[in-house]
Amino acid sequence: MDDNITTIELRVRGYHLDGYGHVNHARYLEFLEEGRWDYFDHHAALMDQLRDGQIAFVVVNLNIDYRAAAVAGDDLVVETQLAEVGSRSAKMVQEIRRRSDQQRVCRAVLTFVLLNVAENSAMTIEGSLRESLSALVAAQKSQSA
Amino acid sequence: MDDNITTIELRVRGYHLDGYGHVNHARYLEFLEEGRWDYFDHHAALMDQLRDGQIAFVVVNLNIDYRAAAVAGDDLVVETQLAEVGSRSAKMVQEIRRRSDQQRVCRAVLTFVLLNVAENSAMTIEGSLRESLSALVAAQKSQSA
Amino acid sequence: MDDNITTIELRVRGYHLDGYGHVNHARYLEFLEEGRWDYFDHHAALMDQLRDGQIAFVVVNLNIDYRAAAVAGDDLVVETQLAEVGSRSAKMVQEIRRRSDQQRVCRAVLTFVLLNVAENSAMTIEGSLRESLSALVAAQKSQSA
Amino acid sequence: MDDNITTIELRVRGYHLDGYGHVNHARYLEFLEEGRWDYFDHHAALMDQLRDGQIAFVVVNLNIDYRAAAVAGDDLVVETQLAEVGSRSAKMVQEIRRRSDQQRVCRAVLTFVLLNVAENSAMTIEGSLRESLSALVAAQKSQSA
Repeated sequence: MDDNITTIELRVRGYHLDGYGHVNHARYLEFLEEGRWDYFDHHAALMDQLRDGQIAFVVVNLNIDYRAAAVAGDDLVVETQLAEVGSRSAKMVQEIRRRSDQQRVCRAVLTFVLLNVAENSAMTIEGSLRESLSALVAAQKSQSA
Repeated sequence: MDDNITTIELRVRGYHLDGYGHVNHARYLEFLEEGRWDYFDHHAALMDQLRDGQIAFVVVNLNIDYRAAAVAGDDLVVETQLAEVGSRSAKMVQEIRRRSDQQRVCRAVLTFVLLNVAENSAMTIEGSLRESLSALVAAQKSQSA
Repeated sequence: MDDNITTIELRVRGYHLDGYGHVNHARYLEFLEEGRWDYFDHHAALMDQLRDGQIAFVVVNLNIDYRAAAVAGDDLVVETQLAEVGSRSAKMVQEIRRRSDQQRVCRAVLTFVLLNVAENSAMTIEGSLRESLSALVAAQKSQSA
Repeated sequence: MDDNITTIELRVRGYHLDGYGHVNHARYLEFLEEGRWDYFDHHAALMDQLRDGQIAFVVVNLNIDYRAAAVAGDDLVVETQLAEVGSRSAKMVQEIRRRSDQQRVCRAVLTFVLLNVAENSAMTIEGSLRESLSALVAAQKSQSA
C-alpha cells in the first residue's frame, strides 16, 4: 500500500445525522479531521518535526463539495493525501466515499500555512520539513501516472 | 428576578437532531453546559475565587432523566441552580422545559467536587468559597418556601 | 435595519473549543448553520414556498476562509445574506466577527441548488420563488452602493 | 469471546477535547452511543424484532460517573452489556477504560423502556423479546460467576 494515501473507515450512526436523516454538514468535518489525525499517525517522523511546538500547521481555507448524502448504516471510507507544497502553504485533498458502491459523498481541499507559534506569523516552508512534505506529494504523483 | 436561578432560552435547530428527528442525547449535555456557563457569568464574584486556576470544580456524576423529546422549532428554557453544598461536593440541578407548554424535556443533577489542581486531589469546600456557595443555595430555598 | 442581512450573536464556551483552546473547525459550521436558520426565521414567506416539502435547498459547496481563531469568552457576530441567485443555484455569504474589535474570524460562501425532492434532481430556480430570492439580493446590492 | 459484552476501541483526537484539554462531557455520550450501536450490530436477531418500527427502546435515564479525564492520544475501550431486564424497563451498563493502564474513565447506567410507537406509550417487555433480552443478561451473569 502507498503510505502517501491513508484511509480510515467508519459507519454512519444515528448521532451523526440531522433531522433530515442525512449526515450533518458539520459532522463531515469531524470525519475529515479524523482522517487527517490518522494520516499524521502514519507519518510520525513528519510530526516529530512539529512536536517541539514552535511551528504548527494551521488551516486557512476549506473548500468542500457535497456530492451525495450519507445515511445511517453507510460504511464510509475517508481518504487523505498531501496534494501540493508551495513556498508558504500546502494543500491536502480528502475524499469520503461510500464503500458499498464507491459513491463519492464529498471531496475537500484544505489549505494550510506553517505558523511560527511564538511570533504568530506565517513561515516559509523550507529545509528538511519541505523535503519531507515534498516526498509525500511526489510519491503520490508517480503513483497516479 | 432571583439571580440564584438563571435561565437561558434556545431554539431547536436541524443540527441538534438525530436521525429520528429528536434532539440527540449528547446535545442536551451541551444545552445544560451552556446553562451552567451562563450561570457562572451571572456569578462573577464566585468565579473570581476560582480564577487563579489553583482550584476548579469538576463534575463527578451526572444523573439525567429524559421526560420528553424536543423537536425542531421547539423553544427550550434551560434553568440552572445550585441545589446543595456539602463538605466535599456540591450539586447543581438543571431542567430543560419547552416554553410553549412548559413540558419538562429533561432534568439533570450534577455532582461536583472541588479540585486542588496542583495536587490533583479533592479539597474540602470551606471558608469564603463555602459561604459564597451556601448563600446561593439558601436564597433558593427561601424562595420556594 | 436591512432585513436582508441578518445577524445573531453567541458567546464562545468551553465546549466549543478543541484541545488547542480554539473554536473547533467543525463547530464554526454549526455557528453558520444557526445563522442560516435565523435568516430563514426572518424570511418566513420565502420558507413557506418550500414548506410543502416538494422542493428543498441543498448545499453543494462550502468555501470557508479561516482568518483568526476565536477563544473562550469571545462574543461572536454571525452575519448572513443571500449574495447571488442564478438559474440553477444560489449563493449565501456568511461572516463571523468578534464583536469587541470587529476582527473577522471566518467568511464562508455556500452554494445551494434547488432540489425536486420526489425526483431527487436539481430544478431551475424560476417563477415566484426566483422573484422572492432576487428581491433579497437586489436590496442588499443597493444598500452597499 | 462472550458476545454478550461487546467492546469498541477509539483514539482520542483534538476535536474530542474541550478548552481544558480533556474529552468534553457531551462527547463521552457519543462514545457510549457508538458502543451501543456496535452492540446492536452484534445482536442482529434482537434488532430484527424491533425493525418493523412498531416498537422502540427509548432511554429514560442516564447515570454516569466520571472517574478520570481522557486526553489526546488516549486509546479508549468502550464496553457495553445488557445488565437487567424488568417487566417494563431494561438497563445497559457501559464502561470506558484507557487501554494502556486500564484506568476507568467513566461508567454509565442507561435505563430504557419499550415504546409502542403508534400509541406513544410504554409497553410491557414480554414474550419472545423478553426471552431474547433475558438470555443476554443471563449469559453475562454466569460469566462473572
